[in-house]
Amino acid sequence: MEDVIAALVITMMLIPQSLAYALLAGLPPQLGLYASMLPLLAYALFGSSGPLSVGPFAITSIMTATALGSAFSTPELGTTLSNDQYIMGAAVLAAMSGGFLLAFGIFRLGFLTNFISFPVVTGFISASALVIASSQFGNILGIELDTSSFFNVLSSTFQNISELNTYTLMIGLSAFIFLFFFPKLLNLFIFKITQSRFLAETLSKTTPLLAMLVSILAVFFWDLSKQGIVVVGDIPAGLPSIALPDVQSMHWESATWKSLASSALLISIIGFVSSLSAAQSFAAKQRQRINPNQEAVALGMSNLTSGISGAFPVSASLSRSAVNFKAGAKTPAASGFTAIGIAISGLFLTPYLFYLPVATLAAMILVAVLSLFDFKAIQRTWEFNRKDFSALMVTMVVTLASGVEWGLISGVLLSIGLHLYRSSHPYVAILGRVPTTEHFRNVERYNVITHPEVVSFRIDASLYFANARFLEDKVNELVASHPDAKHLVLMCYSINDIDASALETLFEINQYLKDANMKFHLSEVKGPILDRLKRSNFLDQLSGNLYLSHYQAWTDLTGLPLKN
Amino acid sequence: MEDVIAALVITMMLIPQSLAYALLAGLPPQLGLYASMLPLLAYALFGSSGPLSVGPFAITSIMTATALGSAFSTPELGTTLSNDQYIMGAAVLAAMSGGFLLAFGIFRLGFLTNFISFPVVTGFISASALVIASSQFGNILGIELDTSSFFNVLSSTFQNISELNTYTLMIGLSAFIFLFFFPKLLNLFIFKITQSRFLAETLSKTTPLLAMLVSILAVFFWDLSKQGIVVVGDIPAGLPSIALPDVQSMHWESATWKSLASSALLISIIGFVSSLSAAQSFAAKQRQRINPNQEAVALGMSNLTSGISGAFPVSASLSRSAVNFKAGAKTPAASGFTAIGIAISGLFLTPYLFYLPVATLAAMILVAVLSLFDFKAIQRTWEFNRKDFSALMVTMVVTLASGVEWGLISGVLLSIGLHLYRSSHPYVAILGRVPTTEHFRNVERYNVITHPEVVSFRIDASLYFANARFLEDKVNELVASHPDAKHLVLMCYSINDIDASALETLFEINQYLKDANMKFHLSEVKGPILDRLKRSNFLDQLSGNLYLSHYQAWTDLTGLPLKN
Repeated sequence: MEDVIAALVITMMLIPQSLAYALLAGLPPQLGLYASMLPLLAYALFGSSGPLSVGPFAITSIMTATALGSAFSTPELGTTLSNDQYIMGAAVLAAMSGGFLLAFGIFRLGFLTNFISFPVVTGFISASALVIASSQFGNILGIELDTSSFFNVLSSTFQNISELNTYTLMIGLSAFIFLFFFPKLLNLFIFKITQSRFLAETLSKTTPLLAMLVSILAVFFWDLSKQGIVVVGDIPAGLPSIALPDVQSMHWESATWKSLASSALLISIIGFVSSLSAAQSFAAKQRQRINPNQEAVALGMSNLTSGISGAFPVSASLSRSAVNFKAGAKTPAASGFTAIGIAISGLFLTPYLFYLPVATLAAMILVAVLSLFDFKAIQRTWEFNRKDFSALMVTMVVTLASGVEWGLISGVLLSIGLHLYRSSHPYVAILGRVPTTEHFRNVERYNVITHPEVVSFRIDASLYFANARFLEDKVNELVASHPDAKHLVLMCYSINDIDASALETLFEINQYLKDANMKFHLSEVKGPILDRLKRSNFLDQLSGNLYLSHYQAWTDLTGLPLKN
Repeated sequence: MEDVIAALVITMMLIPQSLAYALLAGLPPQLGLYASMLPLLAYALFGSSGPLSVGPFAITSIMTATALGSAFSTPELGTTLSNDQYIMGAAVLAAMSGGFLLAFGIFRLGFLTNFISFPVVTGFISASALVIASSQFGNILGIELDTSSFFNVLSSTFQNISELNTYTLMIGLSAFIFLFFFPKLLNLFIFKITQSRFLAETLSKTTPLLAMLVSILAVFFWDLSKQGIVVVGDIPAGLPSIALPDVQSMHWESATWKSLASSALLISIIGFVSSLSAAQSFAAKQRQRINPNQEAVALGMSNLTSGISGAFPVSASLSRSAVNFKAGAKTPAASGFTAIGIAISGLFLTPYLFYLPVATLAAMILVAVLSLFDFKAIQRTWEFNRKDFSALMVTMVVTLASGVEWGLISGVLLSIGLHLYRSSHPYVAILGRVPTTEHFRNVERYNVITHPEVVSFRIDASLYFANARFLEDKVNELVASHPDAKHLVLMCYSINDIDASALETLFEINQYLKDANMKFHLSEVKGPILDRLKRSNFLDQLSGNLYLSHYQAWTDLTGLPLKN
């Protein structure tokens, strides 16, 4: 029963959203409805999260628009001027994304999404919100804009602002203001009357449906479409025809296929990351566990069915899922009921949508993406770490300047690069003994005892190829700066892992110290590292010793008494 | 004086090598001599390593051939059939490599070469040795081969073996056998007579010059060029004309430029890695330090001057450098004297090289690359770590199948991927207290005391985006498997670094545990990490406490007496 109520609320949210996100993807409105039927059933069958609401989603929709724009080289985002190529391309994108997601799930490749760091996700989603918002400026102002990039939208808005259609702007603006403020008022009002927080919150979510209704009536009675207001127009009633996309008839070149495939990969990654994080946050509240691979399969099936419905890529929407959760959706059956609700609307509601102004849908998109711009997270990253912040900013700027796909790619490459750079310059401390203790600390921070013949140091990182040469350089430097040194002790306390490049470097350091008439010792090597070193012949060739504790190394090599 | 002797020995080695490596690069022989004049002077002026011998180098020569083949889409490695495009392309490659190397040095980008891991270098160089060797099969057998890849060479060798030229094979084979065995005999013989290990070793290095002389005389007196033996032919005498490459006259498309630039980048990276490791190994023996950025500048100037001499990319040759070191080259002046020696040869020696058979040069290349195939390092990597070994094998196989450039690229990407994968699944141990001590160990390995309400665990890795979700999953798992748990303690002893993604995960874990009515505690946080956490408001929001020692956390949370 709770699932049915939740489904009813979600259906009322999903009707306007599915139309709006189809507009955002540059596709005819009925495709939004198609994307909200079978994909939801597929998730209900394969998914494990009750509250998760799969369907059209702002970010994947703008990525679809970008993908189609670059595959067919007509970079016109957010317009309804679609053609057969576009529609077929969208279905192919959905099917391909579904295939990638299934592969993620089946081959347990879900870990790949780990490589999209938090700053990149934050930067990408915040910038996408701006790109999405800007793509709707034209629809709200009633002018044609160059939507090839965020900055081009801004400049062409300024250039063409004089041509704006006043009626369109009035509809768009009043819809925006209504959608922004009315839910809060309605919420307060219903709560005052009924004293039910649940009723107040869920009913206020029907505001977009109300906005649709009011603007349809306004256009119809005042005959506003004669004033240049663009309306949605004829939407074919009925259910999608289920078929594999008839791609043969399109005669696409291999470049088009490549372009679609790489876009589908990006869409599937972003869809997966956002839907997984939503699923996990709800699971936590119920002390459940989400299996990422299972979720990848479920989302993959949703996208595949979206593809064979002739629709476009889908993902989980966090905002709808939150409403679903509050409305009490406990099992994926809620998604199934929602699919039925949308199917009924698709069969009987479409004639009434003829006079729906595109400006109203654009206003809905604007309000929806406002919450995606995460200023707090941006600020928090700035305070925490400038390098992470730089990755965030680069992702944002590239997304704004060159579009969502390049933004994501450059962000991921930059985070990996920054991580490698950071771990290639680890913290190194030359150690001395804290008087009267067995502890060893950084000679630069503490007043410690050192010995001219025994140089010991600690490296705070796992040793691998990116910092192997750094270690070698550091040893060269230590040897050059300690002319009397006879022993070099590497305290391995912080070394969690070691790879073949680092092992080679240890061999080289050992040889180098031999050439310089010095001995190389290791202390406090962790068990797993020791096991690994034993598998090579490094310990046989080591000129010095292996000490369990650094204190032992110190007393043995300095010859100083155990307590002084 | 030692520098002059060293220069004399190196000059005698370098004359045959420079001719052979020009052949390997698919370029006319005089370019090999040109590449051994100014570049050596440039290194003498800017470099810091005395023994390092810059000049034509086997690996960069084959990379030059590959680069020219793909830029001008004529994949014919190891042939002397060069044209103006090729020659100009080689000079441009050298100049571009020089530019990249200068940039590495000036912007301190030398750390980029760290990302080429030891297994990748080993796999790449060993596979390159096979590619180089195979590229000379045609020259030794006197047949035309498809040299587009290693496997194509093998199959076309089998197909065309019947057409082999017996005279060419005899010259090639006897040169190979002579070059392989004679140095060892000469070494023994001279040592027996003179009792000087130095004389024996340096004089035996002149074997290739002797092989050249003998085969020239053989061809000349028996008139073998009439039997189909390919000879080097006319080499224009004189010095290179110094000029910027006249690229305007070539009318290259932008695709050609892009292809040359990306190849030049790879060549400069490989040239830098090999020359730096050679320089460092000699510096170690003299307890000196090499500045990698300075070396990048020196190698950059060498390549730039090679470009304006109309030659091809150069690097340091480890084999020549080792001889230089033994012959006593102490300062870069040795390189200067060698350049003069080569210049004199270029002026007066070239007429005598007319009858030099290409098969002899091919035999020299074969013998030279034998030592590049590093079977020992391959075996050592296999024993040490299977993942590193897989990176090595992929690099080798791709190099053999798709050529040196793709081999290098796929190897680097694979090592980075493997590192990220490895660090995205770090070692996690659930901890219990070792009875009667303050130590905590893995519950699966030791017989330790645990408490149903207090779950503590340790993660052996720095926390960053690639393992942040892993940590989250692990916490979900721990909470699900410990239904009575009220406290979760993360022992941070092994955490060396933490980035914004991991911080966000800590926030999420804190919230998740709050939702599950549990408290989240940290113990043994390192100083730098603590400083970083303080810059965010994480510690204010932490539901539990921050403990200096894990033992403190245990006694406080379990309520058990301090000693039991």
